[in-house]
Amino acid sequence: MLSKQWKGLLIAACLNASFSTLAWAEDYMETALPSPEQRNVILIIGDGMDDQQITIARNYLVGANGRLPLDELPMRGAVQILAIENKPDGKPLYVSDSANTATSLATGEITSRGRISTGTGDNKILPTIVELAQQQGFRTGLVSTSSVTDATPAAFVAHMSTRICQSPDLMQAVVYRDILMGDCAQETKDKGGLGSIAEQMAESKLDVILGGGSQYFEPLTPGNSSQTVLGAASAAGFRTVSSAAELSEAESAERLLGLFSPDTMPVRLRGENGRQAESPEPGWLNYIHRYLGDVTQPAVMVCEANPEFSGMPSLKAMTDAALQTLQKAGSPGFFLMIESASIDKQSHYRKPCGSIGEVEQLNEALASATAFADSHPNTLILVTADHSQAAQIVPVESLFKLFPIPIFTPGKLARIKTPEGSLMAINYATNNFSAEEHTGANVPIFGNQEAIGRVPTFLTQPQIFAVMRDYLELD
Amino acid sequence: MLSKQWKGLLIAACLNASFSTLAWAEDYMETALPSPEQRNVILIIGDGMDDQQITIARNYLVGANGRLPLDELPMRGAVQILAIENKPDGKPLYVSDSANTATSLATGEITSRGRISTGTGDNKILPTIVELAQQQGFRTGLVSTSSVTDATPAAFVAHMSTRICQSPDLMQAVVYRDILMGDCAQETKDKGGLGSIAEQMAESKLDVILGGGSQYFEPLTPGNSSQTVLGAASAAGFRTVSSAAELSEAESAERLLGLFSPDTMPVRLRGENGRQAESPEPGWLNYIHRYLGDVTQPAVMVCEANPEFSGMPSLKAMTDAALQTLQKAGSPGFFLMIESASIDKQSHYRKPCGSIGEVEQLNEALASATAFADSHPNTLILVTADHSQAAQIVPVESLFKLFPIPIFTPGKLARIKTPEGSLMAINYATNNFSAEEHTGANVPIFGNQEAIGRVPTFLTQPQIFAVMRDYLELD
Ligand SMILES: [Zn+2]
Ligand SMILES: [Zn+2]
Repeated sequence: MLSKQWKGLLIAACLNASFSTLAWAEDYMETALPSPEQRNVILIIGDGMDDQQITIARNYLVGANGRLPLDELPMRGAVQILAIENKPDGKPLYVSDSANTATSLATGEITSRGRISTGTGDNKILPTIVELAQQQGFRTGLVSTSSVTDATPAAFVAHMSTRICQSPDLMQAVVYRDILMGDCAQETKDKGGLGSIAEQMAESKLDVILGGGSQYFEPLTPGNSSQTVLGAASAAGFRTVSSAAELSEAESAERLLGLFSPDTMPVRLRGENGRQAESPEPGWLNYIHRYLGDVTQPAVMVCEANPEFSGMPSLKAMTDAALQTLQKAGSPGFFLMIESASIDKQSHYRKPCGSIGEVEQLNEALASATAFADSHPNTLILVTADHSQAAQIVPVESLFKLFPIPIFTPGKLARIKTPEGSLMAINYATNNFSAEEHTGANVPIFGNQEAIGRVPTFLTQPQIFAVMRDYLELD
Repeated sequence: MLSKQWKGLLIAACLNASFSTLAWAEDYMETALPSPEQRNVILIIGDGMDDQQITIARNYLVGANGRLPLDELPMRGAVQILAIENKPDGKPLYVSDSANTATSLATGEITSRGRISTGTGDNKILPTIVELAQQQGFRTGLVSTSSVTDATPAAFVAHMSTRICQSPDLMQAVVYRDILMGDCAQETKDKGGLGSIAEQMAESKLDVILGGGSQYFEPLTPGNSSQTVLGAASAAGFRTVSSAAELSEAESAERLLGLFSPDTMPVRLRGENGRQAESPEPGWLNYIHRYLGDVTQPAVMVCEANPEFSGMPSLKAMTDAALQTLQKAGSPGFFLMIESASIDKQSHYRKPCGSIGEVEQLNEALASATAFADSHPNTLILVTADHSQAAQIVPVESLFKLFPIPIFTPGKLARIKTPEGSLMAINYATNNFSAEEHTGANVPIFGNQEAIGRVPTFLTQPQIFAVMRDYLELD
């Protein structure tokens, strides 16, 4: 039976019945119509999207009494996040990063922070669900608002001891402000390794790669003085695009590589005039004794459109393009990972509005995914986070305001005026550095109807891998 | 059919077949055997038990790879927490307290912080699920590790504009360090009110009240110069007990009031030598510039048994006593609320070991509840939190440790050695006061098999009230 979507396309094509549109419609249907046996997995990752982040976004986007598309999903559970020290028989670490967690989701193995689908201690290559799916003919795609070479997407297709080795010129002794950030000198191709993450992506069997990170594809391919990594991807069969407009015209591409910004894609929302959370300022008397004086809290702000986002494809637009490119007849189905990356990144930089816009983008992409699943019943949708993050909703007026002393956070605070007319105070106070720490709580997992009975209410990230593998009947 | 538990009792009684034991056993079975139609609700509240608190406790109690009894429950969802300003048409507040949240769970209404089952603006008395259940003949009980007059248990049976009005001598102008903490002068009986929370409890139709708070029952009943509030409870038919030993001997009580400590019950675990989270201490160079010098993190500690807990009944012991007292033939079933109160309180005071012990107690009580439900199939068990809390698991070594500058929390930190041999760092940094703030995230809800299909994956606290009311078929 034709889905509504395709019926509409066919009708539209016939009403404009020139030879070419008809031919296009027929061609499109032939390649695009799913066979009833196709099975698909759509894994949506909100980087750092814990319950604080979801609640912050809900309060802002739809009000405290509102519901996000996430909240409508019929299955919900919690995921315990595991990491281990980077040595044989390493002990548990209670806080993870996006590299080890994406590795667990992608490979079913627990590893150490910073690792991209390689094993702790032995640097063993861990096969990913994308690779397993490809071996059985599934089409595969990765979509992210980060650089596509960043830890989360990278771990689904690449293997590297250290996440920083994103491009050929980042393979040895990456130094930042005199600090050695990482070194993958033993993993270059001429050393018998797999080459940088961008190289591995360009050579991969992926059908869709969409996101930021064009700068990592600009260096020359090692051993080839005339071809960039992007050129190599193109030669390997990727149609490459670099703008929202080009993306919208690439509907018929067989394989699609879209890189829309040099690194992380700009986020949709920002604080008023670019503001972030700031330090409360106690009056001078308070420096004499903490019971004395007063405190000036950071000024209230609204969230506003980030001008840098203009012209970027939304996560939903990338999701829609990916879904269209991935659904081809003749394959057993597809695996698609979609990441909203900057919930985490904006939270590191104490920018709640940025995180809110990214949760909004995730929910829009989810709405596209659920609409797709409505007409493609064998589609498992899972939404989860990789780890929890620093932001906390705190009272605008202290619970202890009766006490006539200045009470304020020792960290940074943003006070946001929400569209429903209330104030929401968000606290960032995990450290004194220029970027906040991750935290170690369970994160939520959500699923559509297909997840019920397949995903237990409490599980680990390797168990999520197993659910997806079993759903696609991968070996 | 007899449950295994009662069969065992009967056999034990027969083996010691004196007239009196047999008579006791017969009597016991007559009153205790549930009729098959009985329906029961057990609501377990972890005060402040958000996903950070659960993960902290899991890591410590069973290891990062372990599972708590909570994690075995087959239903899990999330609860949006709602509060409003204390005036007509008040706007949403994004952070709640235990009074307004317990009111929502108990009455299905949204109210303002500090209120005990009374309406915002008009101080209207909001009927509670305990009162509704009693009207239809259900037996009812409240168990807490706090004072039984504290906000969470109070809101299930009492009505008061301000939570502080716990006893007759706290009804007017409660002043603490020259600060007016609350005033319920208009709610005394001689003003036509309901009297203090302790008075309302003593006069209630509750069958079980177990917890701390004996000091609130010691004052004389207003208008009666010879009877304390406890005496009034006794006169009204409560068997009163005050120690674990007395509790274990009160199996046959028809109605039971147990008060085991003057106020909040002592917690089971504490930090080594009573320690709590402490401030990292940067070296003097760091005061010149934040990139300079070093920092001394608080010394690692273990959790140890709290000597003050010795002799206290555990939450499980109180739960077992409550279950035994509540299951009587002739009633349509029971409603029981069980609170582990000091997850929140210990977190206010930056004492992670205290919170861990309270999560452990909650899980033990849950195990008793699920064992009961195994033999009493029409028993709905729900476990939830009332609001989220300040504690965060943070990395032991900063994610940015490559940078050779001292990185540390601006708040307070506890570094706990876990039984599996790792270090867990817990950060408290919501304010500079002597007690941390609550936070505003969604909290988890868990349910047994009976919750499946009755509790959606995302709901509000008033919806939890509705689920419980509908389960007991209350009007
Ligand atoms: Zn991060
Ligand atoms: Zn509290």
